[in-house]
Amino acid sequence: MRRAKEGSVNRSKESSEDTSKEPGADFLQLDIGEAPARGRAQWLAERLRLALADGRLPVGSTLPATRRLAADLGVSRGVVTDAYQRLAEAGHVTGRGRGGTTVVSAPTLPRPERPPATAPSSSALFGQAPPGTDIFDRLRTTPARIDLSPGLPDLAAFPRAAWLRAERAVLNTLEPSAFGYSDPSGAPAVRRSIARWLALNRGIRVDAEEVIIVAGVSQALALIAHVLRRDGITGIAVEDPCSLGIRQHLNYWGMDTPPVRVDADGLRVDELTASGAKAVVLTPAHQFPTGVVLHGDRRRHLSRWAEDGGLIIEDDYDAEHRYDRPPVSALRAALPEHVFYTGSISKLLAPALRLGWLLAPARYRDALALAKRNSDLGNAVLPQLVLAELLDSGELERQLRLLRRRHVHRRDAMIKAIAGQLPGTEVHGAAAGLHLTITFAPGVDGVALAAAAFALGVKAHPLSWYGQRPQPPGIVLGYAASPPGDIAEGIAALGAALRHQVGGNPR
Amino acid sequence: MRRAKEGSVNRSKESSEDTSKEPGADFLQLDIGEAPARGRAQWLAERLRLALADGRLPVGSTLPATRRLAADLGVSRGVVTDAYQRLAEAGHVTGRGRGGTTVVSAPTLPRPERPPATAPSSSALFGQAPPGTDIFDRLRTTPARIDLSPGLPDLAAFPRAAWLRAERAVLNTLEPSAFGYSDPSGAPAVRRSIARWLALNRGIRVDAEEVIIVAGVSQALALIAHVLRRDGITGIAVEDPCSLGIRQHLNYWGMDTPPVRVDADGLRVDELTASGAKAVVLTPAHQFPTGVVLHGDRRRHLSRWAEDGGLIIEDDYDAEHRYDRPPVSALRAALPEHVFYTGSISKLLAPALRLGWLLAPARYRDALALAKRNSDLGNAVLPQLVLAELLDSGELERQLRLLRRRHVHRRDAMIKAIAGQLPGTEVHGAAAGLHLTITFAPGVDGVALAAAAFALGVKAHPLSWYGQRPQPPGIVLGYAASPPGDIAEGIAALGAALRHQVGGNPR
Repeated sequence: MRRAKEGSVNRSKESSEDTSKEPGADFLQLDIGEAPARGRAQWLAERLRLALADGRLPVGSTLPATRRLAADLGVSRGVVTDAYQRLAEAGHVTGRGRGGTTVVSAPTLPRPERPPATAPSSSALFGQAPPGTDIFDRLRTTPARIDLSPGLPDLAAFPRAAWLRAERAVLNTLEPSAFGYSDPSGAPAVRRSIARWLALNRGIRVDAEEVIIVAGVSQALALIAHVLRRDGITGIAVEDPCSLGIRQHLNYWGMDTPPVRVDADGLRVDELTASGAKAVVLTPAHQFPTGVVLHGDRRRHLSRWAEDGGLIIEDDYDAEHRYDRPPVSALRAALPEHVFYTGSISKLLAPALRLGWLLAPARYRDALALAKRNSDLGNAVLPQLVLAELLDSGELERQLRLLRRRHVHRRDAMIKAIAGQLPGTEVHGAAAGLHLTITFAPGVDGVALAAAAFALGVKAHPLSWYGQRPQPPGIVLGYAASPPGDIAEGIAALGAALRHQVGGNPR
Repeated sequence: MRRAKEGSVNRSKESSEDTSKEPGADFLQLDIGEAPARGRAQWLAERLRLALADGRLPVGSTLPATRRLAADLGVSRGVVTDAYQRLAEAGHVTGRGRGGTTVVSAPTLPRPERPPATAPSSSALFGQAPPGTDIFDRLRTTPARIDLSPGLPDLAAFPRAAWLRAERAVLNTLEPSAFGYSDPSGAPAVRRSIARWLALNRGIRVDAEEVIIVAGVSQALALIAHVLRRDGITGIAVEDPCSLGIRQHLNYWGMDTPPVRVDADGLRVDELTASGAKAVVLTPAHQFPTGVVLHGDRRRHLSRWAEDGGLIIEDDYDAEHRYDRPPVSALRAALPEHVFYTGSISKLLAPALRLGWLLAPARYRDALALAKRNSDLGNAVLPQLVLAELLDSGELERQLRLLRRRHVHRRDAMIKAIAGQLPGTEVHGAAAGLHLTITFAPGVDGVALAAAAFALGVKAHPLSWYGQRPQPPGIVLGYAASPPGDIAEGIAALGAALRHQVGGNPR
């Protein structure tokens, strides 16, 4: 609020008496005459973006009302709404309610002449093979102009107003005793809502009491590892390639993670059987990172393996995010007594909420509930009840539809950019999820490519990070969290890096 | 809202046209002529309480505006405000903003003729010695008219409006990237705020980066146990008596918990030394449950033990709740390299928030951060930032002052009731905290007393639950979560049970 008085864009109480100075009057000295006739919204968005980047529109300031700015510029209100919408999708502004449109983040301008002194270099981040356990934390804290890391939904789409509304509704009617200690396995209301959601969206029939609320899939895996170790199990097979985070998690909790190959039909169940592993964690609906769907024959084969005593841990990490294919049913739906099933709202709302669920075969349920109890006495209650409210009111369903539209749009932008900038590249797993995996002709060095892209200000992960055994040269690219313009720019940087590499141009 | 239309107490849109029927007009058919001239507020509160209990004022309904009801009854507005305040303190209503005063919970009327069929009997709950690991969950889910279990603050005092305001402020300015994965050790903003709070309130100098945000003290202990076990430590000495929950937690995570006696000066450090234990968890500021403060000599002795290689885990569980004594400084302040320090907002705001902090000796910090990371990738971000906002705005300070006033009032009510109903009983630990421990003359059976009180609808814990070795006959009584009327009634029930027991009256 202090900054608001310094700038000229805010309608502070002091200036409201000065009616000759309307907030949009000479706002940013915009001259609509500069705009192309058929691209005014884009022109306006670009001008605003520059003002955000150079500090003329600081974080916390409010944009003029659309009606007012449109009148002042002599354009239709739709032009201004469209421009604001672009900024909102890019995560720079939020609001648009009675409080107005507020600036929440500034775009980073490329500053090749002054990289942050403390940031690790591209070779420090990408030079290590295999990557260390700190790789994600180091990458997260290293700034880059464009972030195409996989695993994030469109964070700018988080329904702030709906969340706050739901929380107000919860707080208005909550009994005081609900602020005390509660059921460590979760609040009854949210367990009911999750059970209903899983029935409707994933075909899983489950009683509310069977749902254990956890702090995301990472905690679910920690609890499972703990309980299985007490049961004498010391290894959990993983898909190869698979999520590096999951592998590191299991290793930390004392589990070996023997790799089992993934081919075009999904997990090689014959190799799983041959490995002698007693348990396996997999992503059957949309294999991470290859995007393969587990084929029907493999599902049957895997079911037999489970019925012979194998334990399946089904990580249904992005089951809801499918675009142009029918839903793939959950293994848990058919094999309740052989499948641990886990999911979260990280990709539906936000990873920062640390809220997920876990279903277990009946014989493991009490042990898991006890492990959860002794880990943290249960998740925080308020966010659970807010989630229940969002589920029951249909708000989450609405959010999912919104995300799907945006994600498809961004996916298509990425595929188009790849076709233009990376000809000959093979694209995998486009039918669902939040990322694409692309592979290159043999001879390309995926790690060097990611390192070169990073040097150009673009984060993306080499496919090899996810494998325990050698993988084809490839890159894993998240598209959900970036607006189309960033995606195009990021892929262009990758294209430049690839041309440089295959051109054999020595440094 | 559906119920609102059925009742007569709500001001629904439909009835707002019917101006002859003012909401307070014949509200509950109250006749002020029945009220004693000098106790009108109490009379009104009692009538409202009955209407809450028998369903005439259902949960979700709104009480008439104070001004209106006062005018209708022909009393001053202060009488109505006072009555509403009593209901609010008891946790039955909330609000009082523009939305009006809303009913959130009904008092339970004693129904001796129809106990819930599935509730465990008094003997099932109290018959087991030592109590099982499920005792707290079973007690929590067993209803009772009056709950004097220790460990809870005044839950009705949770600052709902301030919490919501802070959350709105956070959501209005949060960058989209904050909804993604973040630092597993906690959001920088709240670590800074906690560091400041600990400096101001506990005399602990600590950098923000040294603070690890955890899901309460229970998680802090789980993480410490895990890290110490990797360091080859297999036992952590505990005070005897001590928190049963803490003991069960440590046992679950594979730690032995050798008991060390507590006397009038606190932990017997000579016994700790003799035990050979490498680590100890203790509550030096207000020993749980005896309320003893660790004496200066013992502190010096304990410091020497630590400097000789012993590790101290300081559970500063209710350091802020002191009433008529100077603050006791934290061990951590003097011994940063020998003390793990943990605390939470469970007793300042609500256990349901599952939010706490952990400081560690430098050589354990990275290992603990890694354990936290692999447990759940960090606490949820929004509540952390809301807490930071409440800390920075002074709202938490205000909450603490409010709680202190209420708690002192309730403590005094309990001490007075004990003097009247339980003559000859010794009261311990009244100078701080949220509970009293009372002990009886030898020969009294504390467990039987708690069981008898439970049969009369009053929950309280026998002191023996907290000891590994025999304890004097006693009861641990929480006063903070109950209004004075409930406290008086609960202590009266205990008194009746004691008279019955020492009267030697056989069943």
